[in-house]
Amino acid sequence: MRMSEGCLIVISGPSGTGKGTVCSALLAKHPEIAYSISATTRKPREGEQDGVNYYFKEKTVFEEMIQNGELLEWAEVYGNYYGTPLAPIREKLSAGKDILLEIDTQGALKVMEKFPEGVFIFILPPSLEELEKRIRGRGTDAEDSIKRRLNAAAGEIKLAEKYQYAVINESVEETVETVAAILKAEHFKSKRCTAIINEISKSKGE
Amino acid sequence: MRMSEGCLIVISGPSGTGKGTVCSALLAKHPEIAYSISATTRKPREGEQDGVNYYFKEKTVFEEMIQNGELLEWAEVYGNYYGTPLAPIREKLSAGKDILLEIDTQGALKVMEKFPEGVFIFILPPSLEELEKRIRGRGTDAEDSIKRRLNAAAGEIKLAEKYQYAVINESVEETVETVAAILKAEHFKSKRCTAIINEISKSKGE
Repeated sequence: MRMSEGCLIVISGPSGTGKGTVCSALLAKHPEIAYSISATTRKPREGEQDGVNYYFKEKTVFEEMIQNGELLEWAEVYGNYYGTPLAPIREKLSAGKDILLEIDTQGALKVMEKFPEGVFIFILPPSLEELEKRIRGRGTDAEDSIKRRLNAAAGEIKLAEKYQYAVINESVEETVETVAAILKAEHFKSKRCTAIINEISKSKGE
Repeated sequence: MRMSEGCLIVISGPSGTGKGTVCSALLAKHPEIAYSISATTRKPREGEQDGVNYYFKEKTVFEEMIQNGELLEWAEVYGNYYGTPLAPIREKLSAGKDILLEIDTQGALKVMEKFPEGVFIFILPPSLEELEKRIRGRGTDAEDSIKRRLNAAAGEIKLAEKYQYAVINESVEETVETVAAILKAEHFKSKRCTAIINEISKSKGE
């Protein structure tokens, strides 16, 4: 029996921990979970669809959204805005759907402030050495970029204590199972079940 | 990878919700979970063993335990003391073992005060009507006792909001799965993983 409203699951962690792979695998295994789509002012690339890959917005529209507090968080990257619109999240949650937001640690901290009822999960690498191996293994990053990421990661890992949950990503399959267990458990948090608790306590004689 | 220390799982709820059956089924399926054994001043019945069914104590010893704060909670029932000794719980938790405590709602509220780091799960009946059916179904209770239990239950159910989790016990199997998911999730609470988070953030060059 489904007892509670939907949860916003925020998955975050340093670059290279594999959080993207974990999110894709989670969505593949649990298609009932919705994915939070970002808004951006950058132009669509070939094949990208509005409302699927991103919500594509004009700069003035995006700035209005910022002004009106319609974004859970936003950032400017190389002259383009990126952000998380709140309205589609609220809509899905009140329809009882869970929604997954994958975001960097800076963004997650902002979401924590604006939406503390979210479920915040920090994905950890097994060690910084292993993180270095994974980043080098991609073969796409220059040496100075690798060093920068690793230094950032060492600092970011301490942020894990600000999250409710911390999961070491040793195997994607295990991490997905753990995130699914966290999500299941969160649905049974009594603060999310007050309506049904009330209903049961008054159920006599129905 | 096991990231954290053990959890004290406290399972509680009104009489008749099936919390005892849930606990037995949980322990059968997860023999790695230890069971919290109560201390009592009542005499052992035939076949009961000290340290297995109860810790059997003399009245003066039990009263000393109360004085010394060695009990998480205690109560006097028909002239005998019953209580939950803290020392064996602390021992098992620091050895990394989870420990299950099944207790009535009065006792659970006392444990919450003394041991807020426990995981408190309230077992709900699907409805008060269903609870009445279950209590009557046992065929062991007199009419006035049934009425007393049902009145108590209606009040107790509101206490569910004080617990972290509330689970409707519709099927024992499902409830056991939910409790197991809650326990798994709790092991990944970052507050329980501070040691390993520290270790990883300093792991470079090892």
